[in-house]
Amino acid sequence: MAILLLNPGQMGAALGAALATRHDTLWVAQGRGASSRARAETGGLREVATLARGLQQADIVFSVVPPASAQDTAAAVARHGYQGVYVDANAVSPATGQAVARTVQAVGARAVDGGIIGPPPQQRGDTRLYLSGPGAAGVAALLEGALFEAIVLNEEAGSTAASALKMAYAGWTKASSALLLNVRALARAAGVEQALLDEWAISMPDLPQRSERSATANAHKAWRFVGEMHEIADTMASQEGLPEEFHRAAAALWERLAAFKDDMEAEPAAVFEQLAGGGDAGSS
Amino acid sequence: MAILLLNPGQMGAALGAALATRHDTLWVAQGRGASSRARAETGGLREVATLARGLQQADIVFSVVPPASAQDTAAAVARHGYQGVYVDANAVSPATGQAVARTVQAVGARAVDGGIIGPPPQQRGDTRLYLSGPGAAGVAALLEGALFEAIVLNEEAGSTAASALKMAYAGWTKASSALLLNVRALARAAGVEQALLDEWAISMPDLPQRSERSATANAHKAWRFVGEMHEIADTMASQEGLPEEFHRAAAALWERLAAFKDDMEAEPAAVFEQLAGGGDAGSS
Repeated sequence: MAILLLNPGQMGAALGAALATRHDTLWVAQGRGASSRARAETGGLREVATLARGLQQADIVFSVVPPASAQDTAAAVARHGYQGVYVDANAVSPATGQAVARTVQAVGARAVDGGIIGPPPQQRGDTRLYLSGPGAAGVAALLEGALFEAIVLNEEAGSTAASALKMAYAGWTKASSALLLNVRALARAAGVEQALLDEWAISMPDLPQRSERSATANAHKAWRFVGEMHEIADTMASQEGLPEEFHRAAAALWERLAAFKDDMEAEPAAVFEQLAGGGDAGSS
Repeated sequence: MAILLLNPGQMGAALGAALATRHDTLWVAQGRGASSRARAETGGLREVATLARGLQQADIVFSVVPPASAQDTAAAVARHGYQGVYVDANAVSPATGQAVARTVQAVGARAVDGGIIGPPPQQRGDTRLYLSGPGAAGVAALLEGALFEAIVLNEEAGSTAASALKMAYAGWTKASSALLLNVRALARAAGVEQALLDEWAISMPDLPQRSERSATANAHKAWRFVGEMHEIADTMASQEGLPEEFHRAAAALWERLAAFKDDMEAEPAAVFEQLAGGGDAGSS
C-alpha cells in the first residue's frame, strides 16, 4: 500500500514523516523547491516526479496545503481519475470541505474530512489529526503509534466535523492573537502604549509579554493565516447569527503583516509600528 | 466645594462613594429609579431634585453614564450654562470625548478626559480612574487615599489619552470574551462542542472554564457593552489601517445576548445555545 502526501510544507512533511515510519509514502517533486525536497528526504518520503506518477501508485492521498489551494489540489487529483481514499486535512470551512469531497467523489474517490490541531510535532501529544466521515477509522489506523496522533470524530456520511472543529479552534487561537496585536497597535498609534503596559502590569500581567511573543512568533507566517481567517469567517457566516467580522478583521490584520514574510528576526516594536501605520517593513 | 455625580449606576455610585468620603457629593434624583437611590444613599451621596439644582451647587461634575449617553449628558449640562470642571469618565472614543469637551467648553466649563479601568472597587488597587488634560491633577487630588485610585496621564490641552487608553484596554478584555463565546457557539452550532472541549482540555486547558465563566459573568450585562464596542470600533477606524470589524462583531455578539439583561442566573449552556441560534431567551 502506498500513500501520497501533498505537499511537504512544514506541516505536510511532519505528517508525511509520521506516515513514512510504517508505510511507503510518496511526494511529488514537480513544482516544489529545495526546502520541500530537504523536508521530504529528512522525513523518509519517496520521490515521484509528477502528480500522475504519484496517483498511479497511491491508495491514499493526504492533502496538506494552504487553505486557498485545497480545491485546486482536489481538482488536479480528480483530473487524473483517482479512485482511492482522499483525505483533506486542510484548515478549510465545512463548505469548502464539502466542495472538495464532491470534486473527488465525482471521479470515484472516497473522501475523508480532516483537520490538524497543533504544531509540527516534536513529541507525541503535541499534535492531532482529527478525522470524520466513512473511512476515517481506516485512515486513523495508518498513524497508530505515530508521533502524529489521529482521532476519529465520527464515520457519518458527509460529515465535516473535523473541518468544523479546526475552524472553531483556530477561530480562537489565531484571531485572539490578532486582536491582542490590534489593541496594542491602537495604544501605540494613540500615544498611550506605555500607559497600557503599565495598566496591564497591574491587572493583566501576562499581556505585555504575550503580545510581544505573539508578534515575534506570528509576524513571519502571518501571510499564510489570511486564507484560513477567511475560511473561518465563511464558517461563522454559514451559521445563523454568528458574526463573521471577527475573522475578516483578523485576516486584514495578518495581511498587514505580510511584509514580514520569512523575517524570523522581526522585533515586536517593528510589528506594532507596522500595524500602527508607521512601519515600513517590506517597503524598501 | 461640591461635586455632582452623574449618575449613580453601579460604577458611578462606586466613584461617588469614594468621592463622598471626603467631599460633599451630590446626585440628581429626577429620572432615576429605586436602585440608583439605594446605591446613592449607601454611598453617602446627597440628593438634589433636579440637574439644575445640582449644577447650581457643583464646582465639579463627573459624568459616568453609558457610552451612548455621554454626549446627551454633556449637552444637558451645557444647556444650564455650567462653568465648572467637567470630567467625562465614560468608555468613549477620543472623538466622542473631544465632542463632549467642545460641548461643555462652549459655555465656559473646563473639560477633563477620564477613563475607568476595573470593576466597582472592593479594595484599593482594584480600579483606576485615568485622567488627562489641563486640570487632571486637581481632579486626581479629590481621590487621594480613596478606594478608587486616580492616575494622571498628562495635562496637555485637548488630550484624550484617558479615553484612548480605556478603548485599547476594553478592546481586548470585552472583545476577547466575545470572541471566545463566539467560537464556542460555532462549535455547538456545528455539532462539535464536545470535541472542542476535549481538544481544549489537552492544549488550552483554561478555555473550557474560561468560556463558561465569561458566559455567566457577562450575559446579564451584555446589553450595555454594545455601545462601548462601537466606540472602540470607531477608535480603530480613526487610525489608518487598523480594522474596526473585531469590535463591530463583538457589538453584534453582545447585542444577541441582550435578552439576558439582568438575568443573574443565566446558565452557560443557555448562553451558548442563544448564540448558536437555538436559544429562546427573552422570546417568551
